[in-house]
Amino acid sequence: MLKTIPSILSPELLKILMEMGHGDELVIGDGNFPAASMNSRVVRLDGHGVEEILKAVLQLFPLDSYAPNAFLMEKVAGDTVQTPIWASYETIAKAGDPAFKGFEHLERFAFYERSRKAYAVVATGESALYANIILKKGVVV
Amino acid sequence: MLKTIPSILSPELLKILMEMGHGDELVIGDGNFPAASMNSRVVRLDGHGVEEILKAVLQLFPLDSYAPNAFLMEKVAGDTVQTPIWASYETIAKAGDPAFKGFEHLERFAFYERSRKAYAVVATGESALYANIILKKGVVV
Amino acid sequence: MLKTIPSILSPELLKILMEMGHGDELVIGDGNFPAASMNSRVVRLDGHGVEEILKAVLQLFPLDSYAPNAFLMEKVAGDTVQTPIWASYETIAKAGDPAFKGFEHLERFAFYERSRKAYAVVATGESALYANIILKKGVVV
Amino acid sequence: MLKTIPSILSPELLKILMEMGHGDELVIGDGNFPAASMNSRVVRLDGHGVEEILKAVLQLFPLDSYAPNAFLMEKVAGDTVQTPIWASYETIAKAGDPAFKGFEHLERFAFYERSRKAYAVVATGESALYANIILKKGVVV
Amino acid sequence: MLKTIPSILSPELLKILMEMGHGDELVIGDGNFPAASMNSRVVRLDGHGVEEILKAVLQLFPLDSYAPNAFLMEKVAGDTVQTPIWASYETIAKAGDPAFKGFEHLERFAFYERSRKAYAVVATGESALYANIILKKGVVV
Amino acid sequence: MLKTIPSILSPELLKILMEMGHGDELVIGDGNFPAASMNSRVVRLDGHGVEEILKAVLQLFPLDSYAPNAFLMEKVAGDTVQTPIWASYETIAKAGDPAFKGFEHLERFAFYERSRKAYAVVATGESALYANIILKKGVVV
Amino acid sequence: MLKTIPSILSPELLKILMEMGHGDELVIGDGNFPAASMNSRVVRLDGHGVEEILKAVLQLFPLDSYAPNAFLMEKVAGDTVQTPIWASYETIAKAGDPAFKGFEHLERFAFYERSRKAYAVVATGESALYANIILKKGVVV
Amino acid sequence: MLKTIPSILSPELLKILMEMGHGDELVIGDGNFPAASMNSRVVRLDGHGVEEILKAVLQLFPLDSYAPNAFLMEKVAGDTVQTPIWASYETIAKAGDPAFKGFEHLERFAFYERSRKAYAVVATGESALYANIILKKGVVV
Amino acid sequence: MLKTIPSILSPELLKILMEMGHGDELVIGDGNFPAASMNSRVVRLDGHGVEEILKAVLQLFPLDSYAPNAFLMEKVAGDTVQTPIWASYETIAKAGDPAFKGFEHLERFAFYERSRKAYAVVATGESALYANIILKKGVVV
Amino acid sequence: MLKTIPSILSPELLKILMEMGHGDELVIGDGNFPAASMNSRVVRLDGHGVEEILKAVLQLFPLDSYAPNAFLMEKVAGDTVQTPIWASYETIAKAGDPAFKGFEHLERFAFYERSRKAYAVVATGESALYANIILKKGVVV
Repeated sequence: MLKTIPSILSPELLKILMEMGHGDELVIGDGNFPAASMNSRVVRLDGHGVEEILKAVLQLFPLDSYAPNAFLMEKVAGDTVQTPIWASYETIAKAGDPAFKGFEHLERFAFYERSRKAYAVVATGESALYANIILKKGVVV
Repeated sequence: MLKTIPSILSPELLKILMEMGHGDELVIGDGNFPAASMNSRVVRLDGHGVEEILKAVLQLFPLDSYAPNAFLMEKVAGDTVQTPIWASYETIAKAGDPAFKGFEHLERFAFYERSRKAYAVVATGESALYANIILKKGVVV
Repeated sequence: MLKTIPSILSPELLKILMEMGHGDELVIGDGNFPAASMNSRVVRLDGHGVEEILKAVLQLFPLDSYAPNAFLMEKVAGDTVQTPIWASYETIAKAGDPAFKGFEHLERFAFYERSRKAYAVVATGESALYANIILKKGVVV
Repeated sequence: MLKTIPSILSPELLKILMEMGHGDELVIGDGNFPAASMNSRVVRLDGHGVEEILKAVLQLFPLDSYAPNAFLMEKVAGDTVQTPIWASYETIAKAGDPAFKGFEHLERFAFYERSRKAYAVVATGESALYANIILKKGVVV
Repeated sequence: MLKTIPSILSPELLKILMEMGHGDELVIGDGNFPAASMNSRVVRLDGHGVEEILKAVLQLFPLDSYAPNAFLMEKVAGDTVQTPIWASYETIAKAGDPAFKGFEHLERFAFYERSRKAYAVVATGESALYANIILKKGVVV
Repeated sequence: MLKTIPSILSPELLKILMEMGHGDELVIGDGNFPAASMNSRVVRLDGHGVEEILKAVLQLFPLDSYAPNAFLMEKVAGDTVQTPIWASYETIAKAGDPAFKGFEHLERFAFYERSRKAYAVVATGESALYANIILKKGVVV
Repeated sequence: MLKTIPSILSPELLKILMEMGHGDELVIGDGNFPAASMNSRVVRLDGHGVEEILKAVLQLFPLDSYAPNAFLMEKVAGDTVQTPIWASYETIAKAGDPAFKGFEHLERFAFYERSRKAYAVVATGESALYANIILKKGVVV
Repeated sequence: MLKTIPSILSPELLKILMEMGHGDELVIGDGNFPAASMNSRVVRLDGHGVEEILKAVLQLFPLDSYAPNAFLMEKVAGDTVQTPIWASYETIAKAGDPAFKGFEHLERFAFYERSRKAYAVVATGESALYANIILKKGVVV
Repeated sequence: MLKTIPSILSPELLKILMEMGHGDELVIGDGNFPAASMNSRVVRLDGHGVEEILKAVLQLFPLDSYAPNAFLMEKVAGDTVQTPIWASYETIAKAGDPAFKGFEHLERFAFYERSRKAYAVVATGESALYANIILKKGVVV
Repeated sequence: MLKTIPSILSPELLKILMEMGHGDELVIGDGNFPAASMNSRVVRLDGHGVEEILKAVLQLFPLDSYAPNAFLMEKVAGDTVQTPIWASYETIAKAGDPAFKGFEHLERFAFYERSRKAYAVVATGESALYANIILKKGVVV
């Protein structure tokens, strides 16, 4: 632990966030996200929800102002599950970074494809469904 | 995540708990515990308190009935900090395993010495002080 | 060994089952399955039959309800060997997970191709022929 | 799997048995034996009892005729558990190798000390207590 | 060394033969075969001829009865070297496995291509030319 | 780079500072300090002076209030070099952490001995002589 | 540190510069450059600007006289940020190597593509935007 | 060092020459050759010229009599540098192996392409330009 | 394989013989020698006798003329096995190196102790008993 | 290769020289020095004499002015070999560094003991006997 740094961020995750540069993407997967088959760089934060992680990440990590910078996985056709967590994400992201302009939605397999090219994936214990996020890193000025 | 297994336990931690045998010891360190300098096998569960981890571990992990099986680090002489979390640990451990008979207290550097010989250390984000625990594994029958 | 967890599951296999997410696939190969040339993640459970492993895995591992979730390798044209073990698998899978709807059959080389993309392969000592299974992981809710 | 080799022996275990030379020792631990903290070379045979492994090992592995070649862990003072498996081990060992002359008993911590110096440890799922064995390899002529 | 196992087989080679499954292929290369550039899994048996290795391998390793199971590299056009060792291989293979039906001949670069996809290559000190063999593993029943 | 974190701290150094716990020590060596022969965990910050690093580290890293927490290497007997940088360190440390109470001085080889037991060493390009520091981490509350 | 070698060059960077040959390329990225996702060989020089690194590198590293040897990332269409650092780079490069003939400009994603094929990337703390450089190594005569 | 083996050949290089088989190629690059970006197997012989290495290699390494077995990089169009070292190579190769029939010349980038597929690259300190060689290994009879 | 080098020497063994210097020792163990528990550097030459290896090694490897340079393991008290192979070793060593002055005999456990400090161990398939040798390397002039 | 750096120094050796700090020692061993059994950090410069390496190293590497900084291995009692190379070393060292005050002589096994604690060993092809050197690094100011 260190002064001023949210204690939910592990040493390895902080290292990864620092290594990332402009345009690199971070996936925060929910508890059912196939993190380890998507990416060779996986940070596990078992037992935590995505909301608290998103809040902590955005204290340090700027969103990209040159391109769409936040993505959600859209629901599979026919699935009637509700996703109230999306509104909560929206609130947290708006408060966390002025460059946030709303989420883009990606079809399930397009989301997976993007995750494979991401810099890293955070695996969480989030129990909500369709609760995965991709964030694109911006410039620190 | 798997059915019936507490989601706070990471895959790596579960693997370690399974590998441990009779008499092996597990340290659950608080957020200020020098985990990485104590042991080469460290599982990080940043952002979690020790109580929820202790509860989850004891669902699967039996305590040793052949020897003292639970240890706390005693306060350094002159330190006036209160440790109400000890009572909570006591309650959780009693509920979790009938072999629990109360904690033994180890002087700070004796606790470190024992941690060096433990099988593994769990590093948490527990903010309470003197909140480290050592558990000795018993026999699965 | 741990309380409540079938002792046939090795620490490494349990870790792998936990790491897997929605849509990831697990191959349980019989004793003649070319496990090591199919996948870089192989867990060996030499000397065990597939039935007891299948039973143990399904205690913890949910099947996918969004897609076909269980596959068998179909017999090579002209092979007259009998496969009574398939009926036994059917019984175990039905009892193990309500999401199970029966096995799909894959041609031998299609089965291999799918195994190459699976998350992991369990190598067993099953002596029955055509006794390989692929399971697709579902969502833990 | 190979012709004539018992299928319970894993490829890694067979490799280890072959690498061992005159005087090297093999520990076969029961399900509660702290295998991974005793030795850096551990072969897991989860879910199997020690008897079937002992039988298979002795088909290939000669016992040392120059020194005591088989050891059991003696019961801790005051423990009243019965150990009928010892008689079964005796029968298997006698049938398996003419150099077998009976087991020597080692006090628990002496057994651990010897395990630390052994060439390798086999971790099993044996549920009987005090069911650990050490075998000393002899000469192949 | 172990009882009943030919001492020419190294521990690593035996492990590899055991790991292989139905349809996996093993190359036994002569002393001039470019083993290390063909495959990442190479077992060296320097100083030995292929005949004695072939004999030992076939004691344990069944040939595939579902497909052609033994291959030789055919001579490069114009090369007048004699290959009496082929007849010897034929004799050994016939005696070693009833599933052997004779060798198929592969053009030099087709042989190389197949070697790249093989499970492993044994590098020998065989001084005869065109003395390389590929064997396809069958089913252990 | 991340928001609010001094850009002179490398990702690896930040990870190390986070991993450290109460009582762990960090060495910041000058350009002539034999960092790599002292410790297996070395972070290189070539080309930087110690003052700017000390300032950055103390923004995040608390000093230990239970024990002496800051050390300098004292001059070798007879060496007449001046060490004005010590006063600068004093100023930076006082401003950086209220727990700082002044430096203790260690004889050269005692300083080396302590460095060997430290958690990590930062290797800098500091050109001043006798410009090495050891800091002891305190508790984050 | 060594005599005559600029202390800003880390041991690892010097090793890399020496290993490079005619035609190999070195990227010096600014603080927002996604270094780690571009290349597996990354040297971090956190906290330094590109100008001082460029100056030091050109003391030892010859530019290629057979091909264009220096590249900048051109501004994204519509971006109005000023890039005064380019003139400074021009001055340093002219003074550093007679083979320097001016910078070529590469579109952002072409620059990334070229970085993926480079021999190595230096990650800096340069805060200016569009401040990345690629240098092509020439012949030492 | 060993009896009868030229002391310029390093242990690692000798091991590589032995591992190579019929048709495998060895690159001996001059001091400006981009060895490390061409091949993952690089042996450095810094400070030596290619002539002495060529002479030593040919004492042990037979050239291929089935195909062109020696290659030079031809000069880039317009380059007027002289290459007297080629005649020296010719003399050494003729004296070293009766299978040598003269060098084939490869265009610069064709030479690089071939180097990428070679078994290994020797990096030297040869200061002559266009002084790289590729040798194809023959059969040891 | 290479010209003039005995084909029984593997690439790895030749590399090791070259790396060894004045005073380093090589163990050539018989088929029952516990090679892997004695030393971390083991070269396996399964299926070969020690005599042919000894002959090949002495073609390249000089014995030490400053100290006793060849050792045998003496028979355990009471063992009546004959060791005719010792005379054969004597003959080979005399013919192989003029510095050879006869073998010294070491008690079994002293031989083991010396093997632990040796540079490397060659594991053979030698079936004779008490057929282990230690050679001490001399100076190449 | 780089401008101004002697081409006999390999990239790895230069990296090591830079990493070394005040008081660290470098061994330059002759061709018979048992480099690999003395130290885990070995740089091979096969085929070179020590004189040319010493000259190159001293261009960059300062000798320690606080302690004896250069050592030779003294001859073994009774050895009558001449060591004219020592005078040559003396000349080179005097010319290379004003802090050089002459060599100290260490008995053979004391030299070995010191080599074990050195930072690194350079293995050369020097054919002179007793031609090993230890250098102690000084301060770069």
